[in-house]
Amino acid sequence: MNKTIRSIGVLTSGGDSPGMNAAIRAVVRAGAFYKLKTFGIYEGYQGLIENNIHELTARTVKNILNRGGTVLKSSRSEEFRTEEGRKKAHQNLKEQNIDALVIIGGDGTFTGGHIFSQEFDLPIIGIPGTIDNDLYGTDYTIGFDTATNVVVECIDKIRDTAESHNRLFFVEVMGRDSGFIALRSALASGALDVVLPEENAPMEDLFNELEKSEANQKTNKLVVVAEGNELGDTFKIAEQVKNKFPHLESKVTILGHLQRGGSPSCLDRVLASQLGVAAIEGLLAGKSKIMAGLIDNKIVFTSFEEAINGKVPINKELIRISKILSI
Amino acid sequence: MNKTIRSIGVLTSGGDSPGMNAAIRAVVRAGAFYKLKTFGIYEGYQGLIENNIHELTARTVKNILNRGGTVLKSSRSEEFRTEEGRKKAHQNLKEQNIDALVIIGGDGTFTGGHIFSQEFDLPIIGIPGTIDNDLYGTDYTIGFDTATNVVVECIDKIRDTAESHNRLFFVEVMGRDSGFIALRSALASGALDVVLPEENAPMEDLFNELEKSEANQKTNKLVVVAEGNELGDTFKIAEQVKNKFPHLESKVTILGHLQRGGSPSCLDRVLASQLGVAAIEGLLAGKSKIMAGLIDNKIVFTSFEEAINGKVPINKELIRISKILSI
Amino acid sequence: MNKTIRSIGVLTSGGDSPGMNAAIRAVVRAGAFYKLKTFGIYEGYQGLIENNIHELTARTVKNILNRGGTVLKSSRSEEFRTEEGRKKAHQNLKEQNIDALVIIGGDGTFTGGHIFSQEFDLPIIGIPGTIDNDLYGTDYTIGFDTATNVVVECIDKIRDTAESHNRLFFVEVMGRDSGFIALRSALASGALDVVLPEENAPMEDLFNELEKSEANQKTNKLVVVAEGNELGDTFKIAEQVKNKFPHLESKVTILGHLQRGGSPSCLDRVLASQLGVAAIEGLLAGKSKIMAGLIDNKIVFTSFEEAINGKVPINKELIRISKILSI
Amino acid sequence: MNKTIRSIGVLTSGGDSPGMNAAIRAVVRAGAFYKLKTFGIYEGYQGLIENNIHELTARTVKNILNRGGTVLKSSRSEEFRTEEGRKKAHQNLKEQNIDALVIIGGDGTFTGGHIFSQEFDLPIIGIPGTIDNDLYGTDYTIGFDTATNVVVECIDKIRDTAESHNRLFFVEVMGRDSGFIALRSALASGALDVVLPEENAPMEDLFNELEKSEANQKTNKLVVVAEGNELGDTFKIAEQVKNKFPHLESKVTILGHLQRGGSPSCLDRVLASQLGVAAIEGLLAGKSKIMAGLIDNKIVFTSFEEAINGKVPINKELIRISKILSI
Repeated sequence: MNKTIRSIGVLTSGGDSPGMNAAIRAVVRAGAFYKLKTFGIYEGYQGLIENNIHELTARTVKNILNRGGTVLKSSRSEEFRTEEGRKKAHQNLKEQNIDALVIIGGDGTFTGGHIFSQEFDLPIIGIPGTIDNDLYGTDYTIGFDTATNVVVECIDKIRDTAESHNRLFFVEVMGRDSGFIALRSALASGALDVVLPEENAPMEDLFNELEKSEANQKTNKLVVVAEGNELGDTFKIAEQVKNKFPHLESKVTILGHLQRGGSPSCLDRVLASQLGVAAIEGLLAGKSKIMAGLIDNKIVFTSFEEAINGKVPINKELIRISKILSI
Repeated sequence: MNKTIRSIGVLTSGGDSPGMNAAIRAVVRAGAFYKLKTFGIYEGYQGLIENNIHELTARTVKNILNRGGTVLKSSRSEEFRTEEGRKKAHQNLKEQNIDALVIIGGDGTFTGGHIFSQEFDLPIIGIPGTIDNDLYGTDYTIGFDTATNVVVECIDKIRDTAESHNRLFFVEVMGRDSGFIALRSALASGALDVVLPEENAPMEDLFNELEKSEANQKTNKLVVVAEGNELGDTFKIAEQVKNKFPHLESKVTILGHLQRGGSPSCLDRVLASQLGVAAIEGLLAGKSKIMAGLIDNKIVFTSFEEAINGKVPINKELIRISKILSI
Repeated sequence: MNKTIRSIGVLTSGGDSPGMNAAIRAVVRAGAFYKLKTFGIYEGYQGLIENNIHELTARTVKNILNRGGTVLKSSRSEEFRTEEGRKKAHQNLKEQNIDALVIIGGDGTFTGGHIFSQEFDLPIIGIPGTIDNDLYGTDYTIGFDTATNVVVECIDKIRDTAESHNRLFFVEVMGRDSGFIALRSALASGALDVVLPEENAPMEDLFNELEKSEANQKTNKLVVVAEGNELGDTFKIAEQVKNKFPHLESKVTILGHLQRGGSPSCLDRVLASQLGVAAIEGLLAGKSKIMAGLIDNKIVFTSFEEAINGKVPINKELIRISKILSI
Repeated sequence: MNKTIRSIGVLTSGGDSPGMNAAIRAVVRAGAFYKLKTFGIYEGYQGLIENNIHELTARTVKNILNRGGTVLKSSRSEEFRTEEGRKKAHQNLKEQNIDALVIIGGDGTFTGGHIFSQEFDLPIIGIPGTIDNDLYGTDYTIGFDTATNVVVECIDKIRDTAESHNRLFFVEVMGRDSGFIALRSALASGALDVVLPEENAPMEDLFNELEKSEANQKTNKLVVVAEGNELGDTFKIAEQVKNKFPHLESKVTILGHLQRGGSPSCLDRVLASQLGVAAIEGLLAGKSKIMAGLIDNKIVFTSFEEAINGKVPINKELIRISKILSI
C-alpha cells in the first residue's frame, strides 16, 4: 500500500452521464473505508484551477446513488489546456494537501489527466463515465446502459404513434464517432435500419431496407440514426428518402440531451460502485495514469494512452443479427 | 332507450393520443354489455370509405387498455372532405347494418362527424381524444394527462444534465394553438419561463426572466416553449437569447412525437373508460351530434358545434403561480 | 393583508406522500415572493417540540420539486398530543419569532393543528398531503394521483405474468378506510373485481364475478383489494377463493410502501404548487384553521373541522362502470 | 447445414421472464430468414401434449419485442414428466412435421427437454429465460437485467418513504436458491445489508451491520432479503431485529411477482435477439441438447447437463464491495 496517499480529490469532467454520482459515492466511501480524506472538486478541471474544492464524507454523498447527472458538476475547461492553468490547479492541490486524483469522464478528461499527471508526478486514476461507450479498456462505460434504456423507452413511445399512422420515423441518437447507442437501441427497438458512423454505407442500402420493409408489409417503420453518421444530417436523410419514396409520410425526432439524464440503471450503479472502489484501491497500490475498467466481469487497468487511442470496433455480429431480425 | 340502434361502429381519427385504446375498449365492452354488435373501423374516416371494417367483441379488445396509440389506427382523410367520399362511407355503413358511430379524436374529427351526421341523419357521438386539451366541453381530453407526465419525465432527465453544466435549456413541446401542455409541464418542472401561443409576450419578457434568474443565481435554467408560440421557432428564440446573453451556453431539445406515446396514466384510463360508456349510453338514449366530456367530475354532453368553436382559455392563475414560484 | 405575519414555519406530518416536496417548495418560494421569512420544521410536530427548526430560502428548496418523500421528514408525535408537548412547541415558535404555520398532511395532522391553533391563537393553514384522497374539501389530495399511477404500473407488470400463466392475482393496495386508490386503479387495470372498505359486499359477490370471468374466458384475472376492506386479510380472501375454485391457481401481492414513493406526477406537482401559494396568500389574508383545497379547479378553503369530519363518499358511478367494463 | 430441419417449434416453459417475447420473435424471424417453417407451441410442454400448436410468421411476432411475459404462455406440466405424456407430445410433433425444438426457460425446462431429446432423438436447443440468473453457461439469463432494474426502481420508491420517516425497511426479492437479484439490487440501492441464500451468515451479522449503521448515523436503512435465505421468512427476520433493536420502527415489503413483469431492458432485448438467432443457427449446424448462452460477449453452447448441474457461484467481490460502500 502506498503510504504517502492520505488525501484524494475526485472530479467529473466532460459530458455528464448517469451513474457518475454512484461513482463519486463509491470513491468517497471507499476513501472513508481506507481512512483517506476525500475532497470533491466542483466543475471539473476548471474548479481545480479556481480552487472550488470541498471536503466530502461518507454521509455527504448519501442519497446521490440513484440520481442522474453529477453533484460535482462538470465543465469543459479551456484554461486547463494551458500550462499556466495546470500550474494553478497543481498549486491548489498542494495547498489542500491532496495527494492523488480520481477523474471521472471520457477521453478528453483522460487526456487532460494524463498530461497533468506527467507534469507534476501526481497519481491519477480515471473512471470511464460517458454514455458513448467508446473507451478502450472496459466492456461498458458508466452511463451507456442507462442511455440505451432511455433511448429504447423513447422509441417505444414513438412506435405507438408510428404504428397508429403507418408512418416512417427517423430517430437521431447520440454518438458523434461511435454507433454503440444507435446499434443496440435499433436492435432492441426492432428498427428496420440503423445508420452508423462506423459503416460507410451508401444511401442505397437504406433505400433497399425500406423497399424490403414495404414488400414485407412492415407496419412499424423506424430508422435509428447516429448523429455522427456519414450520410449527414438526419433531416437531409429524411428528405432524400422522401424524394425516393414520395408516398411514405415520415417524421424526424432528435432525442438530444434527454439521453444523458435519468436515474442510472442497476448495471450502471453496480459498475460505478465497482470502478469507484477499484480506483481507490489502485491508487493505494501505487498505480497511476490508468483507467479502471471492467472486462469480462473482471477489473482491468488500462493506461490512459491505450484507453484514449485504442479503437473500439463496432460489434459486426450485432449488425448481422439486426439485419436478420428486421426481416 | 333508442330501440333502433343494434349495431355501432367506432373509429379513431386525427393525431393519436394515449388512452384511445382504453376508450375503444370501453365502447366495445359497453356495447357488449348492452347487447349491441360493435364494429371497429380501421384508419379513421378513410377506413370508412374503404370498408376497412371488422367486428369487435369484448374479448378482442383485451390487453389494449394499457397500450399507447390506437389499435384501430388513425389517418387524416382528404377523401372524406368530399361529398362523394362521405357517400361511399355511408354506403358501407348501410351494408354492414351499422346504426350509429362513436368517433374518437379532436376538432377535425368532430367537424367531419358533424357534417356526416347531418347529411345522413346518422347518430354520432364524439369522445375527446387528443393530447392538446383544447376542446371545449371537457376538463381533460384523453391523452393530455399522459402527455404532460411524459413531458415532465423528459424534462426531469434534461435537468440532470442542465444542472450538471449550468446550461440553459430550451425544451419545445407540442401545442400548435394551445399552451396547455407547455404551461402545466413548465410549472411542474420548475422552468424559469414558458413561451405560450396564447400570450403575445414580447421577447423582452423572456430576457427579463433570464436576468432575474441570473440575479437569483438559479442553477437550473429551463425554458419551455410551445411549438405554436408567437415568438417563432425555438432555435430562433435560442439564437436571440444567445445574442443578448453571450455567456449563457444554451441547448435546444424538441420533444416531438415522443409526447404522443406511452402507456396511458391512471387518470387517462379512467377518463377514457367513463367517456366510452357515456358515449354508448348517450347513443342508446337517442343523443347525437354531441361530444361526451367530463366537467367537474360529471359527464356532460356538448354539441359538436360548441366543442369545436368554443374557446378554452389558458389558465391565467397558473401563469401567475408559475411566475411566483420561479423566483 | 395581515401585517403581523412576517415569518412562517412549514412542516410535514403523518404518512409521507409524493408531491409534499413540491408543496414545501411552493410555500417557501411564495413566502420569499411576499418577503416573508420561512422556516422548515423537521420531523413534523416532534421537531416543533424539539426545536428542530431551520431557515429555508428560495434557493434551499431547489431541485426538490421532482422528488418523492419529504425533505422536512415526517413523524407521528405522541408528545404533541399532550398539553405540555404543545406548550414546548409554542415556546419554540415564539423564540424563533414564527408568526404562522403551514401544515402538510392528512386528518391527523389537521386535528393536531386545529387544537394547537385554538390553544395559542396561532394562524395555521393546512395543505392536504396524503395518498389516500380521503379528505373533504378537495377533489384530489397531493400524492393520490402519483400513487394511483404507481399502482397501475405495478399491476401492468403483474398482468404480464398473470397473462402468461392464466393465473388469478390478488393485489392489495393501500386504503385503510377508503377505497379510492383501489377503485381507480382497478378500473384502470381492467381488474375483474375490486374489494372496497366502503362496500359491505359479501364474498358471494366476488365468487360471482369469478364465475362470470370464467364463463367469459377472461385470461387476465386480477382482483384489487383495499387493505381496509370488510372481507378481511387478502391472504384469507385468496384462501376462500381457493376453496371455492380449487382449479384456479392464485397468487397474492401486497404493494405496501412502494405506493408512497416515486417522483410526483405532473398533476400532483401542479396541485402542490397551487395549494402552497394559496396557503401563503390565505395566511396573509388573515385566514386560519382551514385547509386549502382544489374543487372543480378552483381554490377552496374548508375549515379543519369540516375537512376532518366531512365524509367523502366513494364514486358509485365508477363502481358501476367498472362492472360494465369487466364483462 | 443440417438439411433435414425444415420446420421448428418454439415454446416457453416455467416461470416467465421479461425478454421471452424478444427471444420468441428472434427464433421466428431467424427461422423465416433461413426459410424454415416455425410453429408456436402454447402453454409450454402441456401445449405440446395437447397439440396447442400454431404456425407463426415473421409478421405474427411483430410488436411483441417490447412486451413482458410470453405470448406463447407458459405452464408447469406434470404430464410431461410421464413417459406417456412425452409420447403424446412426440406424436403431435410428428404429425405437424416439426423437426426440432427451441425451448425457452430455466433448468426445469432444460431437464424436460434433455429427456425428451434423448428419448426421441429430436434436436433441441435451449435459451436461458429466467429472472434468477442461476444457469451455468451464460453471463446473463434473459430477464435478469430487467428484474434487477424493476427491483431497484421499487426500492428507490421505498427509500423516499424510508428516508422521510427514518424507518428500517426489509425488502424481500425473488431468488429461491440464488441471491443474484438480491446482491446486485442491494448494491445498486445502497442497502445496508443483504441476506443471501448462498451465505450461511448468522443473524449476528445483520445485527452488527445495523449497529454500525446506527453508529454512522445512516438515515436510509434498507435490508434486501432473498426469499430463499437461510435465516428464514422475512417477517421473522424483521421480528428478531425488532426484539434486538426495539426503538427501530421497521416495515416489510415483499416485491413478489412484480419482478417478473415489465417491458424488457435494452440489454435483455439484445441478449434475447442474439440467443434466438444462435439457437436457430445452432440447430441448422446440427447441434442439440445444448443451451445457447453469452459469455464474455461471445455465443457459447453448453450441454444441458452442464447448464443444469453447473454451479454458478455468487460474486464474492460484489459482497466485499457492498460492505465497503455501506459504510
